[in-house]
Amino acid sequence: MPNPANKIRNWLKENRVAGVHLVQKMVQENSTRGNESGTQAVVIEKCRQLGLLLDIWEIGDNELKNHPAYFCDRESFEGNPNLVAVLKGTGGGKSMILNGHIDIVPVGDEASWTYDPFSGHIEEGKLYGRGATDMKGGNAALLLAIEAIIASGIKLKGDIIFQSVIEEESGGAGTLAAVLRGYQADGAIIPEPTNMKIFPRQQGSMWFRITVPGKAAHGGTRYEGISAIEKSVQVIQGLQQLEKRRNERIEDPLYKGIPIPIPINIGKISSGEWPSSVPDTAIIEGRMGIAPGETMESAQFEMETCLKELNEQDAWLRENPLKLEWFGARWLPGSLESDHPLMINLIDSFKEITGEAPVIEASPWGTDGGILSNVGDTPVVVFGPGVTKVAHDANEYIVLEEMFTASEVIALTLLKWCGIQGND
Amino acid sequence: MPNPANKIRNWLKENRVAGVHLVQKMVQENSTRGNESGTQAVVIEKCRQLGLLLDIWEIGDNELKNHPAYFCDRESFEGNPNLVAVLKGTGGGKSMILNGHIDIVPVGDEASWTYDPFSGHIEEGKLYGRGATDMKGGNAALLLAIEAIIASGIKLKGDIIFQSVIEEESGGAGTLAAVLRGYQADGAIIPEPTNMKIFPRQQGSMWFRITVPGKAAHGGTRYEGISAIEKSVQVIQGLQQLEKRRNERIEDPLYKGIPIPIPINIGKISSGEWPSSVPDTAIIEGRMGIAPGETMESAQFEMETCLKELNEQDAWLRENPLKLEWFGARWLPGSLESDHPLMINLIDSFKEITGEAPVIEASPWGTDGGILSNVGDTPVVVFGPGVTKVAHDANEYIVLEEMFTASEVIALTLLKWCGIQGND
Repeated sequence: MPNPANKIRNWLKENRVAGVHLVQKMVQENSTRGNESGTQAVVIEKCRQLGLLLDIWEIGDNELKNHPAYFCDRESFEGNPNLVAVLKGTGGGKSMILNGHIDIVPVGDEASWTYDPFSGHIEEGKLYGRGATDMKGGNAALLLAIEAIIASGIKLKGDIIFQSVIEEESGGAGTLAAVLRGYQADGAIIPEPTNMKIFPRQQGSMWFRITVPGKAAHGGTRYEGISAIEKSVQVIQGLQQLEKRRNERIEDPLYKGIPIPIPINIGKISSGEWPSSVPDTAIIEGRMGIAPGETMESAQFEMETCLKELNEQDAWLRENPLKLEWFGARWLPGSLESDHPLMINLIDSFKEITGEAPVIEASPWGTDGGILSNVGDTPVVVFGPGVTKVAHDANEYIVLEEMFTASEVIALTLLKWCGIQGND
Repeated sequence: MPNPANKIRNWLKENRVAGVHLVQKMVQENSTRGNESGTQAVVIEKCRQLGLLLDIWEIGDNELKNHPAYFCDRESFEGNPNLVAVLKGTGGGKSMILNGHIDIVPVGDEASWTYDPFSGHIEEGKLYGRGATDMKGGNAALLLAIEAIIASGIKLKGDIIFQSVIEEESGGAGTLAAVLRGYQADGAIIPEPTNMKIFPRQQGSMWFRITVPGKAAHGGTRYEGISAIEKSVQVIQGLQQLEKRRNERIEDPLYKGIPIPIPINIGKISSGEWPSSVPDTAIIEGRMGIAPGETMESAQFEMETCLKELNEQDAWLRENPLKLEWFGARWLPGSLESDHPLMINLIDSFKEITGEAPVIEASPWGTDGGILSNVGDTPVVVFGPGVTKVAHDANEYIVLEEMFTASEVIALTLLKWCGIQGND
């Protein structure tokens, strides 16, 4: 009789086509913010077929909205539910949260895509589409791990708490709502695209908006105005300097080899209404990375100080200062000890399945792990298939082979973490 | 019996309240592009009361659209007519076009306005509102000059061809349509806000759009993408250098004292969709000033060369070059000899009315004068009330006293130019 690990492996091998079909269906549904319900329906139907206990609800109650970790500018959650689906254990084992977000970022410039961003096109072992890597491939890996365990007739002692949440890309209100609904566990895995690396640290991040003042004038006498675009160039350069200073301080060996451990990303700029006018205002929006050991407040203070310096160095800005807002999304940083039992378990499982030692690094981006660990008091490790490089890019894809390997590693970790009934 | 000039002066003095009311009504109607009809209706009603021959038509026929000087991206002119209103002379005199545009630029940041941009609020001799200076104050000065002549019982020999055109702020399709409809004259005055200076030269200008390519990535690993915003900073700096080189060449003494005779104004930038993503494209739009002696083509070639150099200096742009488009508005440069009879007449009238010598300069911005002179073969001088500095700015205003002075100078010029019947 094959042992449980072999049963899992065989099941995943034999059900490859169905597994690919599952992730393809998930990718083919656009689940950008406010449109999550289509993909969520695919996931709900899958969980229903697996016989999991379903908890489907629309988030947004007052407890959530008044929570200090709630940073969200979304007006309505109607029609786009959160999902938690539980595989109850027989008792006496450790519980595990498997957390994945269903929301995806916008497609960007569609012309840069070779295939339709929602095609789910497969070529040379890669499945293409917005969200394939971030993180529908990871979510499918979770579902396949659960299905492999159930289909193999293995009964676990501890609970598996599968979470398919909205709002991760906008600051984690979905995961926060799940925590506040009472879902906690002895451990959690988030299969964000780590490229199969294991991330015990999660960088935090915050969104900022800088309003740059100018003074309108006719473009033909532009010297009579103050260009908000020219002033924005100074702000961009100031932020680049700030990013440099902040990253030079990072000494955590887990960030070794990462060019910019805690980036300041300038994601948007918008200024001006008319080619022949000097623009009187510019709006810059971006994302500031927060180091695992750092508080949100100290990072905010550093940026405020940077903008104050920019104001002082410029005659116009001295009288018309830059305005800084922290808005929308916010991801708390998180950190797990490298020798935590969950780390040891996952590392061992990885070695067993792949025959190689995993790469252990600090994540260069935020995840919902900060909420799970800081608010939900649940130890978190981030590990999943897919390369970050393509996560928010055109032609995003997931390498299907990796997705199945991740699924197997996670399933094996679950067997050891939750414990198998009748195995002791 | 008072002489004609005194009659004009007295009439303007006695009808000040009505004159202020006229410009106020014009300013209170928003006439941004596509919404010109409200202000135009005020002007049409005034011309009807004055008994002028009205020619009201919607522009946009094929002759216009196929004309080489037609540069316009507007889809429909429906409901927003052009107006030409003629005061026929008794014969034997020189004709004069009085040309003003009815369209205004957008209001910009409304929060920067002390009063509603369409209030027509009057305080300390200034009337406030978008378009007050550019150029409803000038248009009112023209109408008051015509009314003063008519009301004073003066019969002119030459025709006065009053034009209230759309589309000046977007490249002059309204004036071009009037030229193609057959309106030409021995001279033309355009009362754009010259701050009562006399401009025999008109700078031309063109609108450009530069598409800056980037490469999307997750902001947390922004080093895996290429920021279109960072590349835009290089483009902005390159355009600043180009502007510097082009202006260092200008030697026309009429541009003496103008800080940037032919500016390159960057009026708009837009890039990015998401704070946490590296933006994959940026759009920069602006206005390139053309020197009176320069061709549009040679200026275009200079900018193309500048962008080519930027491409060559950058590894990313070398493979993903900047894209340049010339779109929408275009104003031909124009030039009148300083000793042209129209110049001498206007200068003399200015001296008679104000007791001072006028300042003669080259205009730092384009006007419809380029079309009137180049296409319509009509000598043009630009002279009007209002300061350019506030033209496209918040809290735009017209100094009412200046408006009446300009009106008197123009009326006196008309008397001499068109000739008074029975006066020889």
